[in-house]
Amino acid sequence: MLGRLAHVAIAVADLDAASEVYRSRLGATVSAPRALPEHGVRVVLVDLPNTRIELMAPLGEDSPIAKFVAAHPRGAVHHLCFEVDDILAARQRVTEAGGHVLGGGCPMPGAHGKSVLFLDPRDCAGVLIELEEA
Amino acid sequence: MLGRLAHVAIAVADLDAASEVYRSRLGATVSAPRALPEHGVRVVLVDLPNTRIELMAPLGEDSPIAKFVAAHPRGAVHHLCFEVDDILAARQRVTEAGGHVLGGGCPMPGAHGKSVLFLDPRDCAGVLIELEEA
Repeated sequence: MLGRLAHVAIAVADLDAASEVYRSRLGATVSAPRALPEHGVRVVLVDLPNTRIELMAPLGEDSPIAKFVAAHPRGAVHHLCFEVDDILAARQRVTEAGGHVLGGGCPMPGAHGKSVLFLDPRDCAGVLIELEEA
Repeated sequence: MLGRLAHVAIAVADLDAASEVYRSRLGATVSAPRALPEHGVRVVLVDLPNTRIELMAPLGEDSPIAKFVAAHPRGAVHHLCFEVDDILAARQRVTEAGGHVLGGGCPMPGAHGKSVLFLDPRDCAGVLIELEEA
């Protein structure tokens, strides 16, 4: 079921500083920042040959990552996003195997316009997992 | 400089339970556990089409991940490993850009026999980064 690792999301307080780390210190190709007000984040994409890092910072007062960033002011891995062929079939497999889908379990449009679900990290070795229909 | 994402390392207390999450709940291809006593870990590899997840649990009394796992008993992302073409050139770039290499800065054989370095997470948006010569 589990397909490609679509991205690793790293939440940070200072998006410009984190971009500069990946651009200058690590020599990666880094996009311009983009505001996604409907998701409460600003993002920068770090392109790698086989996948992507998404650097995210809170945007607005109700950002869903505000608490996480307050708890990890330097930054931390927020979630891993994996592609799946069929988001509803993936949901069925996860729940039948005892896993829990966050937010009521209904796939929503993610930051890239594809249908996504988030899985409870307590069921997934402590890591928040996003499933994205490829 | 930054090449492929070689793996995402997730440290857990219970390696069998974490393997079962990826095998049964998420439907991934998961290796048998392997003990790496010289690195103080047991590992399970989760193969994805474009990269790999490494599930790691402490092995022995002096495991370098024992404290991390004690602090994150459910599990958490421990580090990201990126390939580089030339580990010494990578070290030079990182240090010239103000970054710090952990453990004295001398490349060591990693868990897969390749030369590796670890970068101080305080310089890298809060995330421990391993560089591995491809």
